[in-house]
Amino acid sequence: MALTESDRISLRRDLHRRPEPAWCEFYTTARLAEELKSQLDLDALHVGPDAIAGDHRMAVPDEAELAYWYDRAREADHRMAVPDEAELAYWYDRAREAGVDEAVLESLEGGYTGLVAVLERGEGPTVGLRVDIDGLPVEESDDAAHEPAAEGFRSEYEGAMHACGHDAHATIGVGVLERIAESGEFSGTLKVFFQPAEEVVGGGKSMAKSDHIQDVDHLLALHIGLDHPTGEIVAGIDGFLAVRHLEAEFTGESSHAGGHPEQGRNAVQAMATAVQNLYGIPRHNDGKTRVNAGVVEGGTAANVIPEEARILAEVRGETTELMEYMHSKARHVVRSAAEMHECTVDFAIGAEAPSATSDQELVDIVADVAGRTEGVERVLERDELGGSEDATFLMQAVQENGGTACYVGIGTDHPGGHHTPTFDVDEASVAHGVDVIAGTIERIGQRGF
Amino acid sequence: MALTESDRISLRRDLHRRPEPAWCEFYTTARLAEELKSQLDLDALHVGPDAIAGDHRMAVPDEAELAYWYDRAREADHRMAVPDEAELAYWYDRAREAGVDEAVLESLEGGYTGLVAVLERGEGPTVGLRVDIDGLPVEESDDAAHEPAAEGFRSEYEGAMHACGHDAHATIGVGVLERIAESGEFSGTLKVFFQPAEEVVGGGKSMAKSDHIQDVDHLLALHIGLDHPTGEIVAGIDGFLAVRHLEAEFTGESSHAGGHPEQGRNAVQAMATAVQNLYGIPRHNDGKTRVNAGVVEGGTAANVIPEEARILAEVRGETTELMEYMHSKARHVVRSAAEMHECTVDFAIGAEAPSATSDQELVDIVADVAGRTEGVERVLERDELGGSEDATFLMQAVQENGGTACYVGIGTDHPGGHHTPTFDVDEASVAHGVDVIAGTIERIGQRGF
Amino acid sequence: MALTESDRISLRRDLHRRPEPAWCEFYTTARLAEELKSQLDLDALHVGPDAIAGDHRMAVPDEAELAYWYDRAREADHRMAVPDEAELAYWYDRAREAGVDEAVLESLEGGYTGLVAVLERGEGPTVGLRVDIDGLPVEESDDAAHEPAAEGFRSEYEGAMHACGHDAHATIGVGVLERIAESGEFSGTLKVFFQPAEEVVGGGKSMAKSDHIQDVDHLLALHIGLDHPTGEIVAGIDGFLAVRHLEAEFTGESSHAGGHPEQGRNAVQAMATAVQNLYGIPRHNDGKTRVNAGVVEGGTAANVIPEEARILAEVRGETTELMEYMHSKARHVVRSAAEMHECTVDFAIGAEAPSATSDQELVDIVADVAGRTEGVERVLERDELGGSEDATFLMQAVQENGGTACYVGIGTDHPGGHHTPTFDVDEASVAHGVDVIAGTIERIGQRGF
Amino acid sequence: MALTESDRISLRRDLHRRPEPAWCEFYTTARLAEELKSQLDLDALHVGPDAIAGDHRMAVPDEAELAYWYDRAREADHRMAVPDEAELAYWYDRAREAGVDEAVLESLEGGYTGLVAVLERGEGPTVGLRVDIDGLPVEESDDAAHEPAAEGFRSEYEGAMHACGHDAHATIGVGVLERIAESGEFSGTLKVFFQPAEEVVGGGKSMAKSDHIQDVDHLLALHIGLDHPTGEIVAGIDGFLAVRHLEAEFTGESSHAGGHPEQGRNAVQAMATAVQNLYGIPRHNDGKTRVNAGVVEGGTAANVIPEEARILAEVRGETTELMEYMHSKARHVVRSAAEMHECTVDFAIGAEAPSATSDQELVDIVADVAGRTEGVERVLERDELGGSEDATFLMQAVQENGGTACYVGIGTDHPGGHHTPTFDVDEASVAHGVDVIAGTIERIGQRGF
Repeated sequence: MALTESDRISLRRDLHRRPEPAWCEFYTTARLAEELKSQLDLDALHVGPDAIAGDHRMAVPDEAELAYWYDRAREADHRMAVPDEAELAYWYDRAREAGVDEAVLESLEGGYTGLVAVLERGEGPTVGLRVDIDGLPVEESDDAAHEPAAEGFRSEYEGAMHACGHDAHATIGVGVLERIAESGEFSGTLKVFFQPAEEVVGGGKSMAKSDHIQDVDHLLALHIGLDHPTGEIVAGIDGFLAVRHLEAEFTGESSHAGGHPEQGRNAVQAMATAVQNLYGIPRHNDGKTRVNAGVVEGGTAANVIPEEARILAEVRGETTELMEYMHSKARHVVRSAAEMHECTVDFAIGAEAPSATSDQELVDIVADVAGRTEGVERVLERDELGGSEDATFLMQAVQENGGTACYVGIGTDHPGGHHTPTFDVDEASVAHGVDVIAGTIERIGQRGF
Repeated sequence: MALTESDRISLRRDLHRRPEPAWCEFYTTARLAEELKSQLDLDALHVGPDAIAGDHRMAVPDEAELAYWYDRAREADHRMAVPDEAELAYWYDRAREAGVDEAVLESLEGGYTGLVAVLERGEGPTVGLRVDIDGLPVEESDDAAHEPAAEGFRSEYEGAMHACGHDAHATIGVGVLERIAESGEFSGTLKVFFQPAEEVVGGGKSMAKSDHIQDVDHLLALHIGLDHPTGEIVAGIDGFLAVRHLEAEFTGESSHAGGHPEQGRNAVQAMATAVQNLYGIPRHNDGKTRVNAGVVEGGTAANVIPEEARILAEVRGETTELMEYMHSKARHVVRSAAEMHECTVDFAIGAEAPSATSDQELVDIVADVAGRTEGVERVLERDELGGSEDATFLMQAVQENGGTACYVGIGTDHPGGHHTPTFDVDEASVAHGVDVIAGTIERIGQRGF
Repeated sequence: MALTESDRISLRRDLHRRPEPAWCEFYTTARLAEELKSQLDLDALHVGPDAIAGDHRMAVPDEAELAYWYDRAREADHRMAVPDEAELAYWYDRAREAGVDEAVLESLEGGYTGLVAVLERGEGPTVGLRVDIDGLPVEESDDAAHEPAAEGFRSEYEGAMHACGHDAHATIGVGVLERIAESGEFSGTLKVFFQPAEEVVGGGKSMAKSDHIQDVDHLLALHIGLDHPTGEIVAGIDGFLAVRHLEAEFTGESSHAGGHPEQGRNAVQAMATAVQNLYGIPRHNDGKTRVNAGVVEGGTAANVIPEEARILAEVRGETTELMEYMHSKARHVVRSAAEMHECTVDFAIGAEAPSATSDQELVDIVADVAGRTEGVERVLERDELGGSEDATFLMQAVQENGGTACYVGIGTDHPGGHHTPTFDVDEASVAHGVDVIAGTIERIGQRGF
Repeated sequence: MALTESDRISLRRDLHRRPEPAWCEFYTTARLAEELKSQLDLDALHVGPDAIAGDHRMAVPDEAELAYWYDRAREADHRMAVPDEAELAYWYDRAREAGVDEAVLESLEGGYTGLVAVLERGEGPTVGLRVDIDGLPVEESDDAAHEPAAEGFRSEYEGAMHACGHDAHATIGVGVLERIAESGEFSGTLKVFFQPAEEVVGGGKSMAKSDHIQDVDHLLALHIGLDHPTGEIVAGIDGFLAVRHLEAEFTGESSHAGGHPEQGRNAVQAMATAVQNLYGIPRHNDGKTRVNAGVVEGGTAANVIPEEARILAEVRGETTELMEYMHSKARHVVRSAAEMHECTVDFAIGAEAPSATSDQELVDIVADVAGRTEGVERVLERDELGGSEDATFLMQAVQENGGTACYVGIGTDHPGGHHTPTFDVDEASVAHGVDVIAGTIERIGQRGF
């Protein structure tokens, strides 16, 4: 039974109401599994630990780190990219309360989220579609002008929000599966990768390291919005900034701030000095560079010279070399700031993602299909992302195997910017996404690459 | 039945094992109530809301603030001086699990901790003794050389510690009550104030505003350690730095750190600029000044330009004028740093405490008694604290009513400095404290002030 | 009589030995005037005040500013972009000592430098060539591996250097004049603009505002090096960053640094805070941005809290909008830093230059001529400068009058980077410059635009 | 012939008109020499190189340093504590133009300034009096309310000023010599040390290392003002902060700020980071500490990433240990800031001075004499300076030889603070200084220590 337009909107809104951060997409995964099982006669559905290469989950702590964080449970910052046991449990419990299939849920325990849905339709190429499913630590607007607030599907989880449209992405993934299953126009195998943990640049690598990607001949990925209005399609997006996450933990020495300030070694001074100088890393003439001290914290009490402080930063570059330039400078700044205030500093490198380019032959197909799609008014051949995306891991994997890849932009009118409290998508664009992507997949099957 | 030396040690170690932060001294209060009730025939025991003027609890959030913090439960920082509902509940539950009298515990709900124990012994002056009972957010050392670790009474609450000897203070308070009750040498009324929330400079004011202090003619307060060795007594401590806590909350605007860094207004940059310049406030020629950015935090994710950041700072001065100088400069620095990064900033003034001086007539008595006390090898008439203490609120209240006050230092060998993970007390000094204070109280009663 | 290759080298080396900063090109101007007069039968030679629109000399102080700087003669910083009377006198005297024509020299007094040389060769278009002539405040390397040091034509003026190849530019200008005068292949009028003060982005505007540019139909400008090797020609350089210079003068209040630090308002703290945050202005997604606190100074003595401090900064942007973004942010940062330290701040906007683009029809001619020029091995149609240039004022003036303009890159092997102590040019490239530019001018005359 | 009151005022005003910085007191020395020779029949007058131990002139460059500074004559900062050849010549020429004895002037060449005047009056102790004679790099107020401006004796040297009363000190020195020569009440030897270069804490040590101090039994030193009003005398000033000057020179690498900012290593960023963190060195609980980045500079042009930058700082402490604490922290901060921006840093330690205490027996005499002196309304036994003074070198030398020393404060109404543009002395206090010091010297002679 086909998904109607209103079914899709319902699904999207249901996901929107329950945004979950990276590696905690318990509800989302289980809900998608239910949806897929009830609507489709899939040839395979790999869920959670079967969908990803668990060892390659970036941004997930190793044993030692888990122990470390557990020991300081009281001071654990839940907003760090790294979910500790407490955070995993928190979201797991919320998913259970929301009433999803317990068996599925249990299989996800420990932060193994995501799915790979497979449809086999005879001879032909294996086509992959990657959509991401995680939310963001942004507090959603409750302004009446914000449609999810007005229409009653605002996030039910305070402090978490689908502020980047991944709810729509997941919906498009389901829609494409359903369309291909129904239409009979596709010959080959379709795999849809519902990828977790894009926002921490963590899930892409673990899916790229799983076996599921190995036989994919052609990969499509997509993003909604990106300042393109409803009715506009970008056939091939490039300009992915290479990115790396970097955690620095400063350790100084506490002392009584009134009685003996001179006996302390102030980790917060070290951190503040580092932040000031991180943003001052010289701009590079070879292209775009970025740095952000996205999360910081330090100290324990007003009257104690702070002994510890942390920075979770990210660096980016238009090329991997530029990202490495920023990374190297950033570490140097942080180390010197620690040294200045007689602190030690420990680094942890978090997630990262490479650059990637869309292959022209897929760009051509997407552009052609988009040009014939109802509701699509304008097709751009290429545009720059100017941000980062770990879909590049999957694109790279397919391209290294001799396949092709293409990242497609689906325009949508969005009132607020990505990652801000008033972000929303124009739901009409979900159909454009389904139509363009499904059409492209069919065409690939027909061409018999 | 008198407390033996080993009873006292047991009590102290029991308290040491369960350090609780300011306004969360649930176990401590209930345990002391049990101890006092079982050991002593008190004339009155005022517990929790009956012991303090609840409206004057500094550093406790008002309704609006509670709502504010509740709303952002996910990101609430438990280490801020201000305990939110979740933190109160956390400690309340721990106290219950530790097995204290449920009835007492219930009376403390909402963060109304502390006790006032009263002994009436006929005609004579009313003498007050103030001891404080709260712990600190310091993680206690588990080094074998650290006696509480070696002897098995290290803090059971990770991240909290009696790192300033308040466990010994509370024990001395109990010991003095017991001694006075037993000895029959005192004529008058004795009130022992077991004060909560000294470390956030919050409990002193609320006890000073309660009725219990109104009829006190002479007040003693004490502190153990302060770099004085076991066997040394300081008859009168002065040089309390006036102190004020200051919270600043920066609000900027988030944006995508890769895609549109220029659209953000970076609250973490504002905070770091403020921290750098707070520590650079000019030293003042008129006396000691202090500033500390004790707790900071900001941002939500590596890839989002931080929209919010916070500083919990304190300023101090050798006089109130010097503290006001620091406070005024600090606000100015913070405001300008916010302005620089196009953020707004909201301030909340937290707790504060004035300066105070010990009265000579009490200093004379303490010095004389100490000189005759077994185990006391050296008596200093006066010394400077160089820190802050909210006992000054109680001292000021008594002195304004025409009474006298004296702050006594009880030397103890302490391996680590105050507020550090290896702080500990030489338990022999507990007896010195009981002997000197009880002896002084008896002498005051005899002299019939 | 034609200039031989060795004459050119001699001229270049003579200029190299006597680099003069912006508006102080006294020797250079007079020497070029002598060379042109002795070698060529020019139709006009406009020198100094006759060559430029003196009122539009950017970065030259107005009366009030001159008075201001004169008053503080002792503390005048000679390295500021703005030459005060003392600096002008210093360089004027050096030029006289170097033995140039006194009459010419006198006409330049007050910092009116530069020349416009005119050759009339019958009917045809008026073609302009702009070359710049000023040196930089860089101390030239005296390493034996540095050819000017090895060959004895290192700068004789300590602290000044032709570190950007303007000595070669001026030589090419002379060489082109001589070639056109000799060849008889050009029909029309040739004007060579020997422009002063490019490095402070000051001379371009004053030449653009002079009458000499008004009748120019086609303008060529050139730069040597720019990381292109000898034998490479870039037919049209674009990507000029718009630039603006900005001076900020902080005024606080001095006090005795030992006795009353709290009475001071520290201008150096304000300046340091500004510098830290200037470099931290957010990168902009729309294109290249730059900021540099190129010259700073402050304070008067170790034991005085600094009352004054200054920053000479520049901001740049890939477009004028991006430059304005940086300018607006920079002023805001500076103002807030002043406010933070209770200082006032006065701004002076210095020189600026717009962006510009080379016209395709001239690019085509240059590319074609270059492709046929001996010694030229590679021709690039377009490249990005990634820096700024006030030739854009002249290009803009010609283009606004309906003419065309083209900026040509002449490759040269240069051991050190531009603006560094080991910069040098491969003298073989001087001939390439003369040949390509002269050939282009002849072609323009033939085509009869 | 005795100096009348109006002679003294004339002398003081003449010196006030010609303030000279440390080691450049050419006019002052020669003028004092003339005054002393014409008014007094001295037994010896040691001038310039004969007055000081030239090798111990602190803050005077060694050969290498002189060469270094000479080489970069163009960028030499005349306001640095270290006078280079150019600055010495500048002031030397001014002194000559002011018309002093050429023979004396010549003997001072190279910055050997100061005098020691000796009066022998028979048997008895050798008494020393130390007065300092140098001016400050402060621009004197020209406000009509500023008496030197109104009365026509404002500094004739723009940017230099007697802003600390050393003109009055020198006058008192002359007055005391004259008084002792006339009165016949003194038995013994009087040596008046007219010390140069106090403000850079440089002259005291070189006088202390000369032979002249070796036989001094009792030393007096004095300062006018210090927030004490006219008519008040402080018999013994203590609380001299130990001080040390510290120069740091950062060297990075220049690059084109527009074209290749990433190739630079920015010395101004290093310097700004250092300044921010120098002022943030933790306050010390043991007593007063100070730090000041008194003079900074860096960079060469707006469009060049700054290669060099300098800080001239000073650190102080209530004790030598506290000064060493500040010194050690300051170096560490500077080194780490250099490292952070990949710069090297060279340090030069400049002048320094120890602490000192006035001997009680001299304090008693001064107090007694002051109490009997006309115009003196109030005598304080002791007060704290809260600043630094290199008279402490001379005091220390005498005390180490078994003698005694006393530092006397002469109150004067001063409208502006020391080291500010509106500082001035009440000339009536000059007589108090002469009377108290001369009276004390006579009493010392009588007592026959």
